[in-house]
This record gives sequence, C-alpha cells and structure tokens, in this order.
Amino acid sequence: MRSVYLAGPDVFLPNAKQVGKRKVDLCTQHGFRGLFPLDNELDEPPGGPRAHGLAIYGGNVEMMRRADVILANLSPFRGPSADVGTVFEVGFFAGLGRPVFAYSNDSRGFAERTRDSFGLDATASVDKAGLSIERFDLQDNLMLPGAVTASGGSWVSKESKGTQKLAAFEAFEEVLVAMRGFADSRPTLAVANR
Amino acid sequence: MRSVYLAGPDVFLPNAKQVGKRKVDLCTQHGFRGLFPLDNELDEPPGGPRAHGLAIYGGNVEMMRRADVILANLSPFRGPSADVGTVFEVGFFAGLGRPVFAYSNDSRGFAERTRDSFGLDATASVDKAGLSIERFDLQDNLMLPGAVTASGGSWVSKESKGTQKLAAFEAFEEVLVAMRGFADSRPTLAVANR
Repeated sequence: MRSVYLAGPDVFLPNAKQVGKRKVDLCTQHGFRGLFPLDNELDEPPGGPRAHGLAIYGGNVEMMRRADVILANLSPFRGPSADVGTVFEVGFFAGLGRPVFAYSNDSRGFAERTRDSFGLDATASVDKAGLSIERFDLQDNLMLPGAVTASGGSWVSKESKGTQKLAAFEAFEEVLVAMRGFADSRPTLAVANR
Repeated sequence: MRSVYLAGPDVFLPNAKQVGKRKVDLCTQHGFRGLFPLDNELDEPPGGPRAHGLAIYGGNVEMMRRADVILANLSPFRGPSADVGTVFEVGFFAGLGRPVFAYSNDSRGFAERTRDSFGLDATASVDKAGLSIERFDLQDNLMLPGAVTASGGSWVSKESKGTQKLAAFEAFEEVLVAMRGFADSRPTLAVANR
C-alpha cells in the first residue's frame, strides 16, 4: 500500500476532522493509505503554546517521513498564494526526493490571481509596493509547479464553491486518479513506507 | 568555507541585484559564502514563460544542493505569512536535514499579525471565513519556527522601515552573528559543500 501525506489548510476548517476523514476514505477507494495531520488532535503538552506548536511540527515531520508521496492542497489561503505550512511540506518532500502532487480550488494563473487580490489591472507587472509579479504562466510561485513537474507529479486546479470551497474536493478527486496512474506504473514507489 | 543559500522575496525588489550583492558581502565579512538566487539573471530559454519558470526552479534546486545552510528572509509577503517560494526552500533544507536560519522585518507574533492583516480584534480565534488562527505564540505557521528550532538554527525578528524594508537588513546582520557562532561550533558543517 502506498502512503500519501494529505497536506493542506483543511486543518484550519471548523470541520477539519470530517474533511480529513472524507479525504482519507477517498484515498482508500483509490488504493492509497491517506495520512492526515490532524493538528487539533494533539493534547497540549506541558510548556505552553510554543511547546505545543513545536510538538505538532515533530509529529507532522514523523508522519511525512512515513509517506511515499505528498498530495498538497495548494488552494489560495489568505492571499494569492497557498498556505505556507502546506508549502513547507511540499518543499520537505522535494528535499527527500519524493513525488509531489497538488490540487487547488482556483484555476487562475498566479499573475492574474495576484493582480485580482490587490485590485491591480491586467497589465500590472509590479504590485503597489513596486515588487515584481511573477510572469511565468504557472499556478503559483514557480517553486511549487517546479517541484510537481520535476518529480513527475500532477497538479489539478478546478473551481470549488460553497462552505467546502477550501477543501477543493473536485480537484482532489481528479488528482487522485492521476496519482493512481503514476503509482501503478512505479511498483517500487512504496519504498519509503515504514 | 561554509556556503549559505540566501532565500527570500528580495528577488522581487526593483533593486534585487544590489540587495543580493550587499547580503553576499555581509556573508563574506562573517566567513560565509553567500549564494543568492538571482532569478532575473537567467536568459529566457526557448519554450516560453512556463519553461523559463521551470528552468529557474532547476537552477535554484541546484544552488540549494551546494549550500550547507539556508538563511531565509521570512518577512511577511503580500499577507500575514512569508513568501511561499522562500518557505518551499526552507522545507527543502529541512527535508535534506540541513540547518535552517531565519530572519524577518516584523516582530509581531503570527496570531497578532494575522488579526492585524484582516482588521480582526485581539480576541479573534478565527478569521472572517471561519478558519482558525494559529495560537502557538510563534513567528509564523508552526512549520517554520519548528524547522528552525529542530535544526538548531536561530530566528531573528527586528523591525525594518523605508524602501529597503522587505530586505530586513537589521535582522539579517543579527542572525548572521548567531549563524557564525553555530558554524564555528560545528567544524563538519561544510560537508554538503561541493
């Protein structure tokens, strides 16, 4: 069985556990073991909130090491780009040399989304602070599609709406199919699985 | 000589080359070889903007592999969190098992900065979309200070102002001193250096 680390800002949803459970079930239906970092499940250790946050880091890293692949929800989060916790985890898998798959609830390109976020017109090449806007016709900062492409993964973007928008189930289901094709053609993929 | 990968949104500044040069010079003064990913220096390859973006990814990954340590500018970028390109690179070093050092131009905690960004009052535990706000008394999403702490690195936050604000030179100079202390106590640090 191939293990998949389910990274995403889903953990910040009020119904994070439910969303996680549904994603893990969908993974099972596609022949994957889904690992979902349920931040909220950890009891607060002695030492206060900082120690708690750092303990969650350790738990997430341990879970990532047990996963063969990352499947990252790179939907925009509080701005034009993806959630930085998720992005960190994508980088971690790239550093480990393991495949990166991604999905998003937003099908605009990064430049367009950045301009829309800040009310800039379609020709703007810099934001209001004079900082340049990436012009590479990619889904987000180039490091993210870069990691997906370099590792042989896939990125699916598909509009989602409603209260479940951030969970991006439409794109999630579609990228699972692509990931299954990838895994089936690589019987040695599960080497990282412990 | 220990090599340091200088990650940060500095590459989006109009005077990115100058800023990079000054940071590399400061590294040299502290006994480090600074590697600065000057995105803008790559000539556009055939294949258009997507191919160009993906080629920069490859160049940055190659440069990261040659560095012993990452020194990441995690100043807030277009929202309450750090630039996702930089965050990806922090994750990459964590995945490689190499030390992570960070600095920022903003000394607020992540919860306070998130609330300020969206005009929420000081007791808000969720944002306007009902998504929870991290409550760990850390500098940004817990994965970032988690990686710094777990690797034995340091994070320095110090207010910067003016047109050079995003470059965060004040915090940069201070974290360089901490990094030198770290490197001096680890003579085998430069093993990654090729």
